[in-house]
Amino acid sequence: MTEDALVIFTPSGKRGRFALGTPVLTAARQLGVDLDSVCGGRGICSKCQIQPGYGEFSKFGIHVDSEALTDWNAVEERYKSKRGMLDGRRLGCQAKVMGDVVIDVPPESQVHKQVIRKSATQRDIVMDPATRLLFIEVTEPDMHEPSGDFERVVLALREQWQVEAVEADLHILRRLQPVLRKGAWKITVALHKGNHDPHHRILEIWPGFHEGGLYGLAIDLGSTTIAAHLCDLRDGAVLASSGVMNPQIRFGEDLMSRVSYAMMNPGGDVEMTRAVREAINSLAATIAQEAQIDPKAIFEVVFVCNPVMHHLLLGIDPVELGQAPFALALSGSLSLPAAELDLSALNRAAQVYILPCIAGHVGADCAAVALSEEPNKSEQMVLIVDVGTNAEILLGNKDRVLACSSPTGPAFEGAQISSGQRAAPGAIERVEIDSLTKEPRFRVIGSDLWSDDPGFAEATKTSGITGICGSGIIEAVAEMRMAGIVDGSGLIGSAEQVRSVRSVPEGRTHSYLLHDGSADGGPVIHVTQTDIRAIQLAKSALYAGARLLMDEMGVDTVDKVILAGAFGAHISPKHAMVLGMIPDAPLDHVLSAGNAAGTGARIALCNRASRDTIEAVVHDIHKVETAIEPRFQEHFVNANAIPHAVDPFPELSAIVTLPQVSYNTAGAGSEGRRRRRG
Amino acid sequence: MTEDALVIFTPSGKRGRFALGTPVLTAARQLGVDLDSVCGGRGICSKCQIQPGYGEFSKFGIHVDSEALTDWNAVEERYKSKRGMLDGRRLGCQAKVMGDVVIDVPPESQVHKQVIRKSATQRDIVMDPATRLLFIEVTEPDMHEPSGDFERVVLALREQWQVEAVEADLHILRRLQPVLRKGAWKITVALHKGNHDPHHRILEIWPGFHEGGLYGLAIDLGSTTIAAHLCDLRDGAVLASSGVMNPQIRFGEDLMSRVSYAMMNPGGDVEMTRAVREAINSLAATIAQEAQIDPKAIFEVVFVCNPVMHHLLLGIDPVELGQAPFALALSGSLSLPAAELDLSALNRAAQVYILPCIAGHVGADCAAVALSEEPNKSEQMVLIVDVGTNAEILLGNKDRVLACSSPTGPAFEGAQISSGQRAAPGAIERVEIDSLTKEPRFRVIGSDLWSDDPGFAEATKTSGITGICGSGIIEAVAEMRMAGIVDGSGLIGSAEQVRSVRSVPEGRTHSYLLHDGSADGGPVIHVTQTDIRAIQLAKSALYAGARLLMDEMGVDTVDKVILAGAFGAHISPKHAMVLGMIPDAPLDHVLSAGNAAGTGARIALCNRASRDTIEAVVHDIHKVETAIEPRFQEHFVNANAIPHAVDPFPELSAIVTLPQVSYNTAGAGSEGRRRRRG
Repeated sequence: MTEDALVIFTPSGKRGRFALGTPVLTAARQLGVDLDSVCGGRGICSKCQIQPGYGEFSKFGIHVDSEALTDWNAVEERYKSKRGMLDGRRLGCQAKVMGDVVIDVPPESQVHKQVIRKSATQRDIVMDPATRLLFIEVTEPDMHEPSGDFERVVLALREQWQVEAVEADLHILRRLQPVLRKGAWKITVALHKGNHDPHHRILEIWPGFHEGGLYGLAIDLGSTTIAAHLCDLRDGAVLASSGVMNPQIRFGEDLMSRVSYAMMNPGGDVEMTRAVREAINSLAATIAQEAQIDPKAIFEVVFVCNPVMHHLLLGIDPVELGQAPFALALSGSLSLPAAELDLSALNRAAQVYILPCIAGHVGADCAAVALSEEPNKSEQMVLIVDVGTNAEILLGNKDRVLACSSPTGPAFEGAQISSGQRAAPGAIERVEIDSLTKEPRFRVIGSDLWSDDPGFAEATKTSGITGICGSGIIEAVAEMRMAGIVDGSGLIGSAEQVRSVRSVPEGRTHSYLLHDGSADGGPVIHVTQTDIRAIQLAKSALYAGARLLMDEMGVDTVDKVILAGAFGAHISPKHAMVLGMIPDAPLDHVLSAGNAAGTGARIALCNRASRDTIEAVVHDIHKVETAIEPRFQEHFVNANAIPHAVDPFPELSAIVTLPQVSYNTAGAGSEGRRRRRG
Repeated sequence: MTEDALVIFTPSGKRGRFALGTPVLTAARQLGVDLDSVCGGRGICSKCQIQPGYGEFSKFGIHVDSEALTDWNAVEERYKSKRGMLDGRRLGCQAKVMGDVVIDVPPESQVHKQVIRKSATQRDIVMDPATRLLFIEVTEPDMHEPSGDFERVVLALREQWQVEAVEADLHILRRLQPVLRKGAWKITVALHKGNHDPHHRILEIWPGFHEGGLYGLAIDLGSTTIAAHLCDLRDGAVLASSGVMNPQIRFGEDLMSRVSYAMMNPGGDVEMTRAVREAINSLAATIAQEAQIDPKAIFEVVFVCNPVMHHLLLGIDPVELGQAPFALALSGSLSLPAAELDLSALNRAAQVYILPCIAGHVGADCAAVALSEEPNKSEQMVLIVDVGTNAEILLGNKDRVLACSSPTGPAFEGAQISSGQRAAPGAIERVEIDSLTKEPRFRVIGSDLWSDDPGFAEATKTSGITGICGSGIIEAVAEMRMAGIVDGSGLIGSAEQVRSVRSVPEGRTHSYLLHDGSADGGPVIHVTQTDIRAIQLAKSALYAGARLLMDEMGVDTVDKVILAGAFGAHISPKHAMVLGMIPDAPLDHVLSAGNAAGTGARIALCNRASRDTIEAVVHDIHKVETAIEPRFQEHFVNANAIPHAVDPFPELSAIVTLPQVSYNTAGAGSEGRRRRRG
């Protein structure tokens, strides 16, 4: 037997020779192997579990003897009998190297665990949150070498965890002495490191080894909906996701109406700030209850939001955002205590991080989309549209990224549509119309059956068929266009013109009857001419924004389109392109990234370094202001046609032939703009 | 005429050649000459006033022509007509160099002005406060290059003042947009730089050029008295000094009784914290009113205090300070917002700095004394005693400094003395006793006359003669010892023994009649045997502490004694030495430093770098714990005699011969300890 032995860690492959008797955790730390530990090697936390391999390892050219590690010791026996441990596992802090050995670090024992995230590119999140739990043993006071209890805590953190520059707020200092004595000079601290502050801040202290959780909230604060993910900051697991309506809706449906409310009503901004903070507190309490955790164990919150929501969350009057030059009070990221935002549901020391805004109309939500989808790393020219009440649009590749926002309005979310409703059970979400018979079939949220499938009536009995949600109206209008019920200018033809009794006159225009539920006491659901106009306005704004960025970039086509936003996940690429919502592209290059803003928030929550990353990326993004750009108006007008008055859609034409119809008769033509192009 | 010219600044002597047309302020900045400016050279603030010299300067070998500077311009004319300017002065930002010139920077135009401070060494304070006012011009927002208003403020501070890493709290961000617009993109900011935080923090903003003041409070938070200096942070002037009783006195006279109160009464510490914070608020309001300034213009507060006051100010239960090992919750310095201490009288963003504590019994007040008196820079071995309810004692030189505290009790402040009172008009403060006649004469606060001077009765008519203050009782006891009324053991002799009817029996002991005011309805003022015992206990504790430090240092004598504390200023060195309060030393080497703790607080308030200095000094001070040191008891017992039972006092003997008397007769000897030595 030699004086030292070879230790090889998998999966990293890191290796080194260590004196016999070296604990595996010590070997791992010296090699920089990613092996977790909260208690610092005291056999308490069990985070350093490893799996030794025995026998022949021809890959490494070594043989691992059955006595390559020391025998089970009392600490491990006690831990296993109390908590249980998988067969073959050892505690890395207890097992000592006695011969050449191969040590596998299972994923759950890695500090920087990889967490799968949904994105168009399926990149993982590497866990490295700003707050972590550390167990320390503190030297007892000595009147001959006087120093404060806090200074000895700082010393313990430096010596036991190599942490420098530790600070604590008064509420921690006030509780420190009794907690240290209760824990017999052993305590667990929740330690926070912001990305602009050189200091580590103690957020919470517990006597002894604290086994409770450490949680964070990633919040996408939208004009309409506030959505939150509750994440376990130790392993990145999403324990619950929940959303509430933004109560500011009662002050105005869209952003500009809320800015107006603040302008017209002294103190109106204060009212809206209070309302949204209360809603966030209530959401935090609800989501904690859902996940069965104590909301006081939430130590981190990341917000992404548009600039108006951003200012109202911070209590800043958004009035300047309502008028040129749309000056933000501040555009950079912001780190601050949650208490300053009155987020009293969380731990009193919880820390908030708000992503940077890009411009007065392009917010931290767009920054979060960029963090999630990383256009700045793309080889291809990628267009990312985050569809909500406002659309955030990014275009670029690794050389250059452009951004703008476009006021699509709430039509894509089912608002301002005659039978529109939010996405909820009973809402029509998919539509198909037979080109020959002009008869529709559809699916509603809550059932996988089509309306002409057997059992559909039974399956939708509980929910009923209550209206059309955002994706449903998009599919309906696109299908109507493909079936020749709607012409290129957006006009619905008469029953005679389209050869279907489902086209019913309504004043001087027509509606298309999608579903008549009146026999069962349900609603009669039409797609009206006004609905078509609302969708046309929304999609024109979206397309014009994208087109403006393409002009600025000097490209006529894009390689890839990513649809983001909660709603983006449900848009059918084909229907979006028939409608001309997005530029022409090969259909298999149109991808959905789900709620990319929410994912971006989750990344910033779980990985501290990503905060620096997005701040640098945002700094390099070039912002294009749509509101004052004359070409935006031109693009907007041209995009009114379905799919487009001017731009060719060759990729779309290759798979779909749109009927060449026109319903703009002299008698029906009441709208000047359309007549000029009819 | 050449292309450039020589510019010589006085008093610095800095010189350089500059292109013709260079403003004097620019030349000064390039040479690192200490010339003030708040407006950054815009002719608004007038802080950069300079005095050009004309004619022959043989010292520098140059001749200054009458046209060496450009003529008065409109800005200077306007300023002079509005505000006035001394003859011969120019504005450094307006006057441009046109030929060789000598420029004097008057003291009031220097940023780092020197402020005289009272100390044993008469060192000056160099002004460099943590908070200063800066005027900036901010770029207007541009929607094509979007950035937040705050980011453009940060940019202006960087470009116009070379300030990096600027932060602002939410309350500033909330007000920033209207203030910028009201000031037409010109604002004044109060900028704070703490000594542990790399960031500059904006504490306040004003539209345009703000001419208001910028003030700070240096607070000596004592067990008995809270004393504050209100300082102008621009020039260091002390605008007002004021004090109030510490209202915690109602919970206990001395420190340990307050700790006991906290231990015996749940929530007692909270009560005491609230009381002291309320008193500080009220003191701040009073002192601001006295100086006729707005208390909201107070942006900085520095506290010095003993450890128990320190913890109670911070809201930390002081219970651990009442029992060995006397563990401080924290010993380091502390920077925090005044709002966290509920100091609502000040500006809402005011910042607090608390000096570090040295040990569980040696507080930030002792650190402040060290900052003021700088024993660590002394070539001589210096003993510094800060006399209060607790005495803080420092001993050392540039090689090593020791510190301890000693529980003298309040006798030196006139408390626990039969006719004792606080230093106030009417209190006897000086005493002389004729050795032959044993007749006293005295002076009272409020009059410079001695009691046997003509007109004394008239002069003291208003105040009366009400009692004895701390310095009075010390002189009285020392004079009684010198006159042979009191023997070396502290016993007062009988009328027969001392040959004076002023010695009157009181039970089994005697008292000395100092003043009988009964004829005028005033008090009869005695020095009783109990008074002597109280002074003996106090002076023994003080001497024993000093002696313990001398043991530790390995010295038998000290080169210099500095008496600090508000009370230290009034102690007569001779009487202190007769009493054996302090070790024997040449009388002219016993100096008073006035309220050194208060001065230390003022230094930390006015000079940011001094905060780093004292933190480093405190780190190197070796603390000696008196409470558990057996030799302290021994020193204490030996120091009970007047001046001392064992230690020789050769310097004292050279100037004063103490009568060899002893009044310890068998019948009177009721005290065993004294009998053994009698």
